[in-house]
Amino acid sequence: MEIFLVGIKDKIENELKQLDTAGLSINVVEAKDVIVDGEQAAYSVMKKPESSVVVAAKMVKEGKVDGMVSAGSTGAVMVSALTYVGTIEGIERPMACGPVISFAPKTVILDLGANVGCQPYQMVEFAIAGSVYAQTQFGIENPTIGLLNVGAEEGKGNELAKEAYQLLKKSGLNFKGNVEGHDIPLGTVNVVVCDGFVGNILIKFSEALGKIISHWMVKEIGNKMDQEELKKISGTLYKTISPGAIMGGGPLWGVDGVVSVAHGASTADQIARTIKTTKYAVDVDLVSKLKSEFKTVRKRLNLDSTEQK
Amino acid sequence: MEIFLVGIKDKIENELKQLDTAGLSINVVEAKDVIVDGEQAAYSVMKKPESSVVVAAKMVKEGKVDGMVSAGSTGAVMVSALTYVGTIEGIERPMACGPVISFAPKTVILDLGANVGCQPYQMVEFAIAGSVYAQTQFGIENPTIGLLNVGAEEGKGNELAKEAYQLLKKSGLNFKGNVEGHDIPLGTVNVVVCDGFVGNILIKFSEALGKIISHWMVKEIGNKMDQEELKKISGTLYKTISPGAIMGGGPLWGVDGVVSVAHGASTADQIARTIKTTKYAVDVDLVSKLKSEFKTVRKRLNLDSTEQK
Repeated sequence: MEIFLVGIKDKIENELKQLDTAGLSINVVEAKDVIVDGEQAAYSVMKKPESSVVVAAKMVKEGKVDGMVSAGSTGAVMVSALTYVGTIEGIERPMACGPVISFAPKTVILDLGANVGCQPYQMVEFAIAGSVYAQTQFGIENPTIGLLNVGAEEGKGNELAKEAYQLLKKSGLNFKGNVEGHDIPLGTVNVVVCDGFVGNILIKFSEALGKIISHWMVKEIGNKMDQEELKKISGTLYKTISPGAIMGGGPLWGVDGVVSVAHGASTADQIARTIKTTKYAVDVDLVSKLKSEFKTVRKRLNLDSTEQK
Repeated sequence: MEIFLVGIKDKIENELKQLDTAGLSINVVEAKDVIVDGEQAAYSVMKKPESSVVVAAKMVKEGKVDGMVSAGSTGAVMVSALTYVGTIEGIERPMACGPVISFAPKTVILDLGANVGCQPYQMVEFAIAGSVYAQTQFGIENPTIGLLNVGAEEGKGNELAKEAYQLLKKSGLNFKGNVEGHDIPLGTVNVVVCDGFVGNILIKFSEALGKIISHWMVKEIGNKMDQEELKKISGTLYKTISPGAIMGGGPLWGVDGVVSVAHGASTADQIARTIKTTKYAVDVDLVSKLKSEFKTVRKRLNLDSTEQK
């Protein structure tokens, strides 16, 4: 694997000097501008074409690299991916998805924060992408889909949920109706569809909980059991509740190229795992798979971009 | 305490016959109609004035009882409370609030599902009510308030969050800005404000998690420690993650009378706790307290009902 580090050249080279990089294939690519957290994403990407995230996205588009990883502002990565790499036909905006909790190891939830304030037709896009995710990552042939809502019955929820329910019902997908908060850890369905506002809050809540509970357990049990065993069990619990915290980030689904986002507060280990996941996406040619699945499902559903909106 | 059981008389009396009620002050009040789950709340309350929830709400309004408890459809309880008991001046709709997780014992979150699809000014109402909750229940003089969002910076989030942020900023309340999912178990602020759609999903997610994790712990640790100790610790963990599941329900805040909602799947113990919480609300005259606090805060903020909308 060949690595390109994109950013302010002097700073990167100064850092590299302090590390042992012998035998590694590392290239440094200059990007003069920096987008900092809190900037308006769309505006910054437009105003700063020399920022690292834009330079890297262009490299993906031009085929100079097979994929990119950024732990910068998710919004800026989203807009750069949209503007410079583009999305798969039929997908309006990239999506973030992944498992929330390993108690439900065959459940993926999306969107996790890339799309905040969704339209009903986007929930159908999430359902399709989630199905492809469950097929390719969990090996499930006909994944079940649930709409995250405040009650099980049809007609419950806010306007988005009510309208999305009707679209999903007609979609021909394996839609099981509404699911509630408790259905997520129970793994009631394979794909949980929700607005990124809700998904993002849920995944951050769960991640923090994993850390807190495993610390609590170690403290509470103390020397009442073997310390090595306790450490192992608390570690497993952390990984089970906070798979995202362990796994690092991953590709934005729906981009016509491999563009991955990692959490801004990622550890070195999480960055390494995100790079690994990104390599996997390149190796299995996830983009082509998603593209072809999307085409098939959309054909079956008789959907085209104009009709949706 | 005198108890009035409102519902289909024959059914209630048949149940009572099988129980030992000696020495208890129990009255049965006839209500011929039943609102079942899945019915459209507003329509059902209007069409079924003889349903138990309407009959009970009227008894609250007429002062025949000091408070009521229902484990029926939350929507139907909400509409009955709104229609027959009314809300405190300045509050448009009742709210559901409570702690989500005992790792943050001095954090209340609202709304928990009574209000789905909120307007920005409702988030200010939640902030005021939450402040009163934190003052009266946690004894905190000047409670901190956070807006649940997908990022810490101003300008993040969906339209509701962006507009609510601006209103809260100008409100004169102790507003600390946005908080994220991980801030809830960390107890970063005393009052977490969110749309009931998000709050409801979060509390149900957390409740299920409590059950699952405590079972997992017992199974995973097995006989590696003293069984009695293990049972105790797993019980504590359950209560810590799922305080709502243990505490039962409580009053809808903002109603001009004590109207409590319990979960439809409540155990006998949870119903008993909800009755206890309801009695507490009557004993400390929560409604008057909230009324006077609301008046003061609204005066300070120079708010009146017309101005808000």
